[in-house]
Amino acid sequence: MLSAGATLRSMREQKPLVHQITNYVVMNETANATLALGALPVMAHAGEEVEEMARIASSLVLNIGTLSSHWIESMLLAGGVATARRIPVVLDPVGAGATEFRTSTSRRILDLVDVTVLRGNAGEVATLIGADAEVRGVESIAAGIDAAELARTAAQRLGVIASVTGPIDHVSDGERVLAIANGHALLATVTGTGCMSSALTGCFLAAKPGEPLEAAVEALAAFGVAAEDAADGAGGPGTFHARLYDALYALEPESLDGRAHIEEL
Amino acid sequence: MLSAGATLRSMREQKPLVHQITNYVVMNETANATLALGALPVMAHAGEEVEEMARIASSLVLNIGTLSSHWIESMLLAGGVATARRIPVVLDPVGAGATEFRTSTSRRILDLVDVTVLRGNAGEVATLIGADAEVRGVESIAAGIDAAELARTAAQRLGVIASVTGPIDHVSDGERVLAIANGHALLATVTGTGCMSSALTGCFLAAKPGEPLEAAVEALAAFGVAAEDAADGAGGPGTFHARLYDALYALEPESLDGRAHIEEL
Amino acid sequence: MLSAGATLRSMREQKPLVHQITNYVVMNETANATLALGALPVMAHAGEEVEEMARIASSLVLNIGTLSSHWIESMLLAGGVATARRIPVVLDPVGAGATEFRTSTSRRILDLVDVTVLRGNAGEVATLIGADAEVRGVESIAAGIDAAELARTAAQRLGVIASVTGPIDHVSDGERVLAIANGHALLATVTGTGCMSSALTGCFLAAKPGEPLEAAVEALAAFGVAAEDAADGAGGPGTFHARLYDALYALEPESLDGRAHIEEL
Repeated sequence: MLSAGATLRSMREQKPLVHQITNYVVMNETANATLALGALPVMAHAGEEVEEMARIASSLVLNIGTLSSHWIESMLLAGGVATARRIPVVLDPVGAGATEFRTSTSRRILDLVDVTVLRGNAGEVATLIGADAEVRGVESIAAGIDAAELARTAAQRLGVIASVTGPIDHVSDGERVLAIANGHALLATVTGTGCMSSALTGCFLAAKPGEPLEAAVEALAAFGVAAEDAADGAGGPGTFHARLYDALYALEPESLDGRAHIEEL
Repeated sequence: MLSAGATLRSMREQKPLVHQITNYVVMNETANATLALGALPVMAHAGEEVEEMARIASSLVLNIGTLSSHWIESMLLAGGVATARRIPVVLDPVGAGATEFRTSTSRRILDLVDVTVLRGNAGEVATLIGADAEVRGVESIAAGIDAAELARTAAQRLGVIASVTGPIDHVSDGERVLAIANGHALLATVTGTGCMSSALTGCFLAAKPGEPLEAAVEALAAFGVAAEDAADGAGGPGTFHARLYDALYALEPESLDGRAHIEEL
Repeated sequence: MLSAGATLRSMREQKPLVHQITNYVVMNETANATLALGALPVMAHAGEEVEEMARIASSLVLNIGTLSSHWIESMLLAGGVATARRIPVVLDPVGAGATEFRTSTSRRILDLVDVTVLRGNAGEVATLIGADAEVRGVESIAAGIDAAELARTAAQRLGVIASVTGPIDHVSDGERVLAIANGHALLATVTGTGCMSSALTGCFLAAKPGEPLEAAVEALAAFGVAAEDAADGAGGPGTFHARLYDALYALEPESLDGRAHIEEL
């Protein structure tokens, strides 16, 4: 059952360890978002330790934002442990579609790892399901597939929960589609807010085992509510960014569900 | 013709993609500065994708702040594409003169890539043109060459626009020298503000094709004006840093030229 | 003699260069903390330059937070130079105990480098001295060894100044144990504040040669006082984080000793 507040309360009690193999640009940001929300981040990417770390984690977040080959190997090693242990895995296919390397790496991870939630923007997710003729980048999506349909199709074809973020977020397990209308325009002015939403998805998945669709929806609602709070009084992208951690830390389990704008389509 | 306001307006309309291969310390900062100003940053350094990314970018920024050998190879690959495509390239030779590795890598990039703008501090730029007897680090410059002369000489010898930043910035194409007197002392208390000025130079170059001297000057004026705004009300380096993104975001094309203190020497 | 104020004044006059080989998550943060306090950070990790950089530095900080094998080699190379030059070395064994790779790497650095100060939390430090039967992670410490005893034992066995941070910090040279009761609970809500305390320890060591116990104590007191100032008026982790640099920058040598809560046990 959907309750971001209940999951948040449970997360803050358990403080699950969320193992993140992510990009250089946002490591500090996703670690701080995780910590501010109430879970424990750990960043580790060396082949020598990545499996051991994944063995003690409650969820795993893979983010390909600044990729290189030995990082991919580590993602696959950690993903293998996560798959074997059946802990949830989030994949953030940053820039899939921008280069062949990113597209093929995302596909390889989807093939080899039991990805629970694929969290990306519309262009990235479309790339991962689209034939070239069908969708080419973000532009052609508006003309053809809408975001709700994109989430449903991606979920079906890739066997994941598809979490497609944008002005309105859409999350689907291939049958149900939920839309989340929280958030703020300032999110688009700070780098790594998409990556943060993936990290927070990892936190919610860890705190709500067995209900990945609900957890993915709740994560985006919570992050969106925090963004709304952070924007209130912010002077622009920089102070919004600092206030975003304040807002995540201050999220109240009691009031969170009342503020979440979630609709089943 | 010099108009930081006009270039900024054009940049925000076009949202050029600025490919940055930069150091670990400032990646988040230069991405956020790029985004706050109104362009689109992309960080990618893997040999497998760096050429493909450079092929879709409007400018390329190379920054050697935390160097290692495979990053240099990627810089040369991306630089090769940029040279072939004739898109502008900014080189930030962070720490040239501090170690032989940084000095020789900067020279190698200058040799192999068609660098449009070399953006560094006086010591770094002096190292790249100086015989040991002539200049040794920042100290000896004050005694001998002044910054305006340094910019002019570097531009002539290296065949670049030389952008030498300091309390007063000096930019030269080897003939003309322009001095920019915007900025604030708090810039020196935050790491990566020099790197940010290089990234923003990449943004202005992308938005003002064919006029690299003017674009480099405008970038420093715009960054300096933003720093003045950010300092107003800041409590120290940390809040100044956050407010710097607010100020870049809030820069007004209409008032920018009136606030720029640019003088041709 | 203990005087954080006197050491800070001296540091700001000399501006010592503090060479840091640290993790991706906190590089920006430790550089900014170093700069805000009044020393000069330099981040360099390439095998090609790490010895040359260590040769011009006044202290070296090694932090294993996001480890991989070629970074370890660089730490050992830089550590070798530091040992030969007898400049102080700080080791921050981030996550020792969490994976075998981190534990064994920490031990290898302690074996091969003349580490001056080992700065870690209780679990990390306990791991590095403990037989499995004796201590297993942070939990069992509370039951058995207390933090003061842990610091003393670690200092004796490892031949270092042991700096064990927590709600109360304990620093020992194996004989004397000093407790520092400054700081604020918000420090635990921001990632990398432990790493910052290691970086600042490097700054104080550089500014107070020959008195490593005192320097390590003063660093924690100064950082704790800054945290108290930053917390005053902060809205949560994000604004606290920004204000922490403001507070480090604003630390007054005159009032610092009066505000430090240092007790010899």
